[in-house]
Amino acid sequence: MYLNCDLGESYGQWQMGLDTDVLPHVDMANIACGFHAGDPCVIANTLKLTQLNQNIIGAHPSYPDRQGFGRRSMQCSSTELTNLLHYQIAALDGMASIYNQSVSYVKPHGALYNDMMRDQAILTSVMQSVASYKKPLKLMILATGKAEQHAKQAEQLGLELFFEAFADRRYDDHGYLQPRSQAGSVLDKQQILQQVEQLKQRGTVTTNTGQTITLKADTLCVHGDNPESIALVKQIKQICQSSL
Amino acid sequence: MYLNCDLGESYGQWQMGLDTDVLPHVDMANIACGFHAGDPCVIANTLKLTQLNQNIIGAHPSYPDRQGFGRRSMQCSSTELTNLLHYQIAALDGMASIYNQSVSYVKPHGALYNDMMRDQAILTSVMQSVASYKKPLKLMILATGKAEQHAKQAEQLGLELFFEAFADRRYDDHGYLQPRSQAGSVLDKQQILQQVEQLKQRGTVTTNTGQTITLKADTLCVHGDNPESIALVKQIKQICQSSL
Amino acid sequence: MYLNCDLGESYGQWQMGLDTDVLPHVDMANIACGFHAGDPCVIANTLKLTQLNQNIIGAHPSYPDRQGFGRRSMQCSSTELTNLLHYQIAALDGMASIYNQSVSYVKPHGALYNDMMRDQAILTSVMQSVASYKKPLKLMILATGKAEQHAKQAEQLGLELFFEAFADRRYDDHGYLQPRSQAGSVLDKQQILQQVEQLKQRGTVTTNTGQTITLKADTLCVHGDNPESIALVKQIKQICQSSL
Amino acid sequence: MYLNCDLGESYGQWQMGLDTDVLPHVDMANIACGFHAGDPCVIANTLKLTQLNQNIIGAHPSYPDRQGFGRRSMQCSSTELTNLLHYQIAALDGMASIYNQSVSYVKPHGALYNDMMRDQAILTSVMQSVASYKKPLKLMILATGKAEQHAKQAEQLGLELFFEAFADRRYDDHGYLQPRSQAGSVLDKQQILQQVEQLKQRGTVTTNTGQTITLKADTLCVHGDNPESIALVKQIKQICQSSL
Repeated sequence: MYLNCDLGESYGQWQMGLDTDVLPHVDMANIACGFHAGDPCVIANTLKLTQLNQNIIGAHPSYPDRQGFGRRSMQCSSTELTNLLHYQIAALDGMASIYNQSVSYVKPHGALYNDMMRDQAILTSVMQSVASYKKPLKLMILATGKAEQHAKQAEQLGLELFFEAFADRRYDDHGYLQPRSQAGSVLDKQQILQQVEQLKQRGTVTTNTGQTITLKADTLCVHGDNPESIALVKQIKQICQSSL
Repeated sequence: MYLNCDLGESYGQWQMGLDTDVLPHVDMANIACGFHAGDPCVIANTLKLTQLNQNIIGAHPSYPDRQGFGRRSMQCSSTELTNLLHYQIAALDGMASIYNQSVSYVKPHGALYNDMMRDQAILTSVMQSVASYKKPLKLMILATGKAEQHAKQAEQLGLELFFEAFADRRYDDHGYLQPRSQAGSVLDKQQILQQVEQLKQRGTVTTNTGQTITLKADTLCVHGDNPESIALVKQIKQICQSSL
Repeated sequence: MYLNCDLGESYGQWQMGLDTDVLPHVDMANIACGFHAGDPCVIANTLKLTQLNQNIIGAHPSYPDRQGFGRRSMQCSSTELTNLLHYQIAALDGMASIYNQSVSYVKPHGALYNDMMRDQAILTSVMQSVASYKKPLKLMILATGKAEQHAKQAEQLGLELFFEAFADRRYDDHGYLQPRSQAGSVLDKQQILQQVEQLKQRGTVTTNTGQTITLKADTLCVHGDNPESIALVKQIKQICQSSL
Repeated sequence: MYLNCDLGESYGQWQMGLDTDVLPHVDMANIACGFHAGDPCVIANTLKLTQLNQNIIGAHPSYPDRQGFGRRSMQCSSTELTNLLHYQIAALDGMASIYNQSVSYVKPHGALYNDMMRDQAILTSVMQSVASYKKPLKLMILATGKAEQHAKQAEQLGLELFFEAFADRRYDDHGYLQPRSQAGSVLDKQQILQQVEQLKQRGTVTTNTGQTITLKADTLCVHGDNPESIALVKQIKQICQSSL
């Protein structure tokens, strides 16, 4: 189970995230492409770091909303969505090539990620956009109870999916994340390590109703916001690397 | 002598230029990359047009100044310049690949173009930036009295240059454009056709002091702003295509 | 019945609308504040025109989405909405004071206008935002079957409303605009003049089902996009100014 | 001698500066207006803090360059400069009025500040812009050897100046700041307190050549970037408040 992390989310003079510290411990780097965060200089610096750490790199594109950090839903048409995804993927991938790297997957950011997971039309647009890019790219989406259905749809488009689970979030019985607004949605350190352990050993999570559901996850989303989260990433990595 | 034209300079709801009308008559399309003009949708639409018209396509990157249309000098560091050029070239080139095209050259826009022609440090930064892109790209600069010197510098970086002349501008004795602020700098229709004729037949222009100077131009910059300029482009094309 | 028109929607080098031509014929100018269109120079130039034509001026604020021209819904929180409205109103009103004018009302633009008319929570946020501005400002909203209810809500906030009707749009039986996506939603010239005549003389419109409904409109929205629409504005003005 | 501090320089999700901590210790708050930093929400939050701390508030406008944090010179025309200053001042002042405050001065930010201090034409544009605002505003500029000349020019425009000195920068013999690029330009803690002491007691600074020059400063620029700088501000304040 790979670890993935959102990165390159500084902007101009504003710093965000301890990218240098977290990159040695994660496999996949989701790099902001300049629409919600990141700018040409931040992207170049991030690519130097991922080159050094030999991370698998992915595009982390967003709605065009820097002030809202891509966290506000925007009613984009399917055409707009396709073009803004292509532009962001292209910008990152072309810059990556300069640093001898290559984008291999796409993970939509923030509101776009949430919107595609709850609105089938948007998911279809995103899938088609990624599938129509010139080179083959995988799409990272949330591992839910609909994973098989999603995989089937992707297959018809010639698209491969990465399914992602969240270490630090409570799930509902459908394999979706319980909204942050509800109490207990964000797990504490102890619960996080337990959830990772369970995912690793049995491929299941325990939901907010106490049910055990299967969750087929290829990768686990972790965070590099501060020293505490870096320490946690290291522990999660140990669990993931241990033999069963 | 190829004709080149700045294109794709609409933005969102704002239209600029008669791209559809001018593209059939020019060889090279300098496509805005989203920093002074253009956005993901405008770029996609422009690429459909250039695909249809089989134009050679080039990136037309700019300082990051949409409100000023890239016409205001900005004091960027060499690193900033490199990264913002790479980002814009990458975004356009990646999108072009979706439409079975490929960026083959770079023509800096507006203030960046002017700055690189009058400031050797900026020209060096631009040359290095284009030369360090992953794939070989030519750089389009102004054909001046310093053309040989520029070509030599480029050669050392493994970079090939396109030299451009302006059909509609009066030259000074050094082969530079007389500033627009001076009377007589922008030629009328008659003078334009005469200057093109002379460039075509003898490879020279008559300067603002009446001197005749040699100008080795690979391409001629034309405009598609309105029906009058489109008509003019057609006449210029006829001159360029006629045998000597 | 006043005529109002959206104005100042150019941006940088991009022109939009024949502001100079339409301003002599309208009473109220809804001026873009820089978030969907307009910039400091466009605003200054627009204010010089409204000063000359002695128009009543209003702020025409928008979601922060220039590339989408404020036409894409954005999920802003109530606090975000309040602050972005205050900022835009303040910027325009302060600049207006330099040209001896004063903003007297607010008409939300595009998606924000549509959202507030179909979502009571957003309308409440907009009303509270305008009511909490330092000086008294009226709010322009769509005259619908809910006009009395809206007026009552506004009154409780100490806010006065301007009700607006559209000359060129077909209404449904609830006094709402039939969506543009449906055939026949945008009226032709003949129908427009007839609808204005009917509104003027009887205060009613004929809906898409053939019903006659009362519409209490203080002002009529007209457009200055092109010479044809300017000609139409003149005719509409004549109807509005004629005695019954 | 008042203490002034640049504030409100967060943007969206990106935090910058310990505004809450520094505001109780400074007299004047230079608030970013949204062009290099700040956004409607950041401005509103900053105004709540300055209201609480009863600071004198000033507009801290910038070139329109968020990615460059207003630190890159931009070749704006005099008209552009005036309009972008008016827009930013107006936005902040109108929002301030909602929180029962009022902008009383303007301190240009970053590259604009530097440009106006070294280019008389730009200083004249800035002075005229501030003087032409609807309400009287003071302009904060660097206290240099040209202070009297600057005061005279301002007076002719009906404009009052605040002269500012820097606690933490080494001066040259003309009363200008030695460029940061030169060694020793940024003072250490000990040197800062000594320079403040000297300014307070004798109204002089010791320059980089060892000369003692008079510097008539109304206010001292301090910083609230981190806990260390906050601690320093408190010490500087003590010196400023002590009787001679």
